[in-house]
Amino acid sequence: MKQLAVVLLSGGLDSCVTAAVARRNSDLALLFLDYGHRTNARERKAFHDIADHYGVPATRRLAAKTDALRRVGGSALTDRNVPVPDAGSDRNDVPVTYVPFRNALFLSLGISWAESVGASSVYLGAVEEDSSGYPDCTQAFCDAFAHAVDTGTRPESRIRVLTPVIHLRKHQIVRLGVELDAPLHLTWSCYKNSDRACGRCDSCILRLNAFKASGIPDPVQYES
Amino acid sequence: MKQLAVVLLSGGLDSCVTAAVARRNSDLALLFLDYGHRTNARERKAFHDIADHYGVPATRRLAAKTDALRRVGGSALTDRNVPVPDAGSDRNDVPVTYVPFRNALFLSLGISWAESVGASSVYLGAVEEDSSGYPDCTQAFCDAFAHAVDTGTRPESRIRVLTPVIHLRKHQIVRLGVELDAPLHLTWSCYKNSDRACGRCDSCILRLNAFKASGIPDPVQYES
Repeated sequence: MKQLAVVLLSGGLDSCVTAAVARRNSDLALLFLDYGHRTNARERKAFHDIADHYGVPATRRLAAKTDALRRVGGSALTDRNVPVPDAGSDRNDVPVTYVPFRNALFLSLGISWAESVGASSVYLGAVEEDSSGYPDCTQAFCDAFAHAVDTGTRPESRIRVLTPVIHLRKHQIVRLGVELDAPLHLTWSCYKNSDRACGRCDSCILRLNAFKASGIPDPVQYES
Repeated sequence: MKQLAVVLLSGGLDSCVTAAVARRNSDLALLFLDYGHRTNARERKAFHDIADHYGVPATRRLAAKTDALRRVGGSALTDRNVPVPDAGSDRNDVPVTYVPFRNALFLSLGISWAESVGASSVYLGAVEEDSSGYPDCTQAFCDAFAHAVDTGTRPESRIRVLTPVIHLRKHQIVRLGVELDAPLHLTWSCYKNSDRACGRCDSCILRLNAFKASGIPDPVQYES
């Protein structure tokens, strides 16, 4: 029997490729968190589309909810009063789309679930260098969090935190996804819309550049 | 102007005394998480009662919700199919009331809020030696988590994780609460009921023993 891996699957490119990596050695348990973000319904659809694609049964899908991050505020992704800027127009070192310490919340839930169902690892699709510059997407943070997991869970649990794409450039992630036959056509990256991707926000620009650099056409449709 | 401190306030004895410590040097921002646990409504009442007592305005109270921990399962506190045992009858090293990695989730939310509102610290009422033996209540875990906070938040945030009662015995926590004039009569500890405390679950027994050892009568009413 294969090991079980919890994968934090937002429905975006990075987490989809991360799931494709995880399933080479493990059965998948897929976790999505609806935190009241703008494109939450569209991302949840992508989550279930990818889960369907991989034949993951309902018992190994967890689409949970919290109002906490929205109420905490402080990000354009959750606060309707803060507009999502077009790429390049955000002058902050850490962009306004940064949801404070979001990956810690996701990882905490992933570890809770992993410990409850006996999974041996939690996969996170964080990307460090070639990304939006969020502090909770760094190797240093993930290593520190992994140490917190070692100290804060049952001694016999031994759950690993794995971030297989963290040091890849975005175009390498696209190529790895194609190599692993990941369903990139089912992913969703746009911060703004939920019908067609806007093609202008930071996340769309990162994605478009990645596909361009990889020489592979992006299968997702954009506003013209 | 005083610094702002986020306090994770469950409404129990330890977190109430922790709030009393925090307010000596800081203005309070109080965070409660309704995670679908058995005594959630009663604990939320205690949260608001304590917040009222300290005159904390609505803008600095956050009672958030998530269904994630309940759906993750694995604990008698959130799973209605797992009964809460009477004290001493639980033969596991880590009790069945353990909610996997719960404090990591609480701390993550606390840090998110602290970073969003510019608070300089997050207080957690974890108790290590004289407690139920949950792995996420240890100094080792809190230290490791604090390091994850340093690496995973904005460099200028510098949010400290503070656990002022972690090495106290329970009766010392009671005495400290009385010293600081903490509203212990407003706290709630019972795992089972929400009207009168059962007096038999692990949490009630710990509390009753603590008051007994401190020589101070417990102001909360118990089932006879």
